[in-house]
Amino acid sequence: MQSCPADDLLAGVDIGGTKLAVGVSDLCGRILSVVREPTDRSGGPDPVLRALERMLCRALDEAGRKLGLASGRPALRAIGIGVGGPLDPERTVVLRAPNLPGWDNCPVKAFFEDAFGVPANMDNDASTAALGEARMGAGKGFSVVCYFTVSTGIGGGIVINGRLYRGASASAGEFGHQIILPNGPLCLCGRRGCLEALASGTSIARRAREQLPADSMLLRMADGDPNAITAAMVAEAARAGDAYSLRLWEETGYYLGIGVSNVINILNPDRVVLGGGVTKAGDLLFEPVRRTVAETAMRELAAVCEVVPAALGDNVGVAGAICLAQDILAPPAQEQHFGSG
Amino acid sequence: MQSCPADDLLAGVDIGGTKLAVGVSDLCGRILSVVREPTDRSGGPDPVLRALERMLCRALDEAGRKLGLASGRPALRAIGIGVGGPLDPERTVVLRAPNLPGWDNCPVKAFFEDAFGVPANMDNDASTAALGEARMGAGKGFSVVCYFTVSTGIGGGIVINGRLYRGASASAGEFGHQIILPNGPLCLCGRRGCLEALASGTSIARRAREQLPADSMLLRMADGDPNAITAAMVAEAARAGDAYSLRLWEETGYYLGIGVSNVINILNPDRVVLGGGVTKAGDLLFEPVRRTVAETAMRELAAVCEVVPAALGDNVGVAGAICLAQDILAPPAQEQHFGSG
Repeated sequence: MQSCPADDLLAGVDIGGTKLAVGVSDLCGRILSVVREPTDRSGGPDPVLRALERMLCRALDEAGRKLGLASGRPALRAIGIGVGGPLDPERTVVLRAPNLPGWDNCPVKAFFEDAFGVPANMDNDASTAALGEARMGAGKGFSVVCYFTVSTGIGGGIVINGRLYRGASASAGEFGHQIILPNGPLCLCGRRGCLEALASGTSIARRAREQLPADSMLLRMADGDPNAITAAMVAEAARAGDAYSLRLWEETGYYLGIGVSNVINILNPDRVVLGGGVTKAGDLLFEPVRRTVAETAMRELAAVCEVVPAALGDNVGVAGAICLAQDILAPPAQEQHFGSG
Repeated sequence: MQSCPADDLLAGVDIGGTKLAVGVSDLCGRILSVVREPTDRSGGPDPVLRALERMLCRALDEAGRKLGLASGRPALRAIGIGVGGPLDPERTVVLRAPNLPGWDNCPVKAFFEDAFGVPANMDNDASTAALGEARMGAGKGFSVVCYFTVSTGIGGGIVINGRLYRGASASAGEFGHQIILPNGPLCLCGRRGCLEALASGTSIARRAREQLPADSMLLRMADGDPNAITAAMVAEAARAGDAYSLRLWEETGYYLGIGVSNVINILNPDRVVLGGGVTKAGDLLFEPVRRTVAETAMRELAAVCEVVPAALGDNVGVAGAICLAQDILAPPAQEQHFGSG
């Protein structure tokens, strides 16, 4: 095991629309403490940022106790921050936060740098989760990791040799908005046939409603209200043997499998990691995804790339944010996948 | 202008199924001589490799004369080679060469290293062309360049900060085999609805035949034989105002535009370059491609990325191969698009 200066610490801040989490680790990324709270969405960013500041102080105190430090707080060296919504290309400001009303153009990075007097590094939640899974989770040890977060929407992130690939304007990895069914169902982005409009949690629930049999198990689960049907109910009904729900997961896995195959054919990863709430459906989703990838990705490329579930669970946001903090202190070495000799 | 040691030279070798080309440049990549010959496909690799060796000697002599060297041959430092078909991951051997019968498992790289006593660097033709366009052609000065070659088939290459991105097993950039129309037409790869099955030259000709009106201008051009119709004829007929052919280019541009949009959404390039024979159709193709990209790529990503024609013409293979040779002597500096600070 790597040895780390015991009293130098990193912080990871995970800002979600419903939950906040702050974690503290040593410089090697070993997590020492995590503090969680629900998000207060009622008052814009100020009360939330103050809550996060208090949570980070508590997490530092707890980490100090765990390290047996006699007195005083251990030395925080850097802060990583994951937050939803598109950021400016310099990644200092949240441009639009769909799940955080009132946060538009909020200078989140500067707040943490000012409050703690250390450098911060911010990225969007999908990129942060991708980095966490690639370095500490299901992608650990692989060279090109493509992470899909399949939840209300579908996001993604690309990690090459342990480093986030961000693209020309810090917006790479929009796996959910590849079009895989021209003239297909309308997506929230305004286009038709995006992967997100076919395989996200929202679209599973929508597809469940569309041709719902009158005597459906799903309708009973939702107390007779089709609009109350969720992707989690579709998973529960499928596990109970409901044929209609089983067919919905087959379709979902087929569409998601095509989206995964396209990313494999374009990027030639050696690991694809699927995370987010919808993946809790387990084999109901993974079995048809893997079957579709075997059928639709190019053989040589599919042969080097396994499709696996995310491994970090609820800690993925904190772990990824800690990786962002690590990168401030130790920028990773040069890429191997560009070597040309 | 950069100054280069005048008598140190690089060679670029472009091995195609119908044409061979060998070029010689200075270390800065300024091309001094190019020698071309048709490919003799009748006898396997041996006569072709011997022809290429003679062509390279001639190109070196011609470059020497151009540089005004009094006597003797100038000093060759490195050789780059572009060739069709998948290579082994170390890129020393052509595994399968669809357009070069008898070349399977041919150790092309070792042949040139032995013949000239200098190091060689080999890649497939699509990656080589991508590198040439990115460094010396329509992608020059851009940071993330995605190159589509639209010809008999559709291939691609990804160049990040002037360096080829190869992926986990040297197979990245299969843009033509992304699936954009599930259950669409059969592709040569055995799958259905690949971009290649919808927008390659072969598929334009196939689509032209499928619903051909009995009095079609195309049928007259092809002397009454529908199987003789080519994509070039469809372009000629469209320019002459043939409504059926104009509609075929609209459809082709629509499908290719979706393929380009998906690559933009996944990789966030600041330049997409389209090359290959089909792009000679010009605005017939580019106009619907650009319109579709504006409609189907994410707004923020489309805003930073222009879709342009390739600039190097027939020299693209030689130029790209010379870039491969350059990389042996001067491996490019570290990436910027992975920076995390």
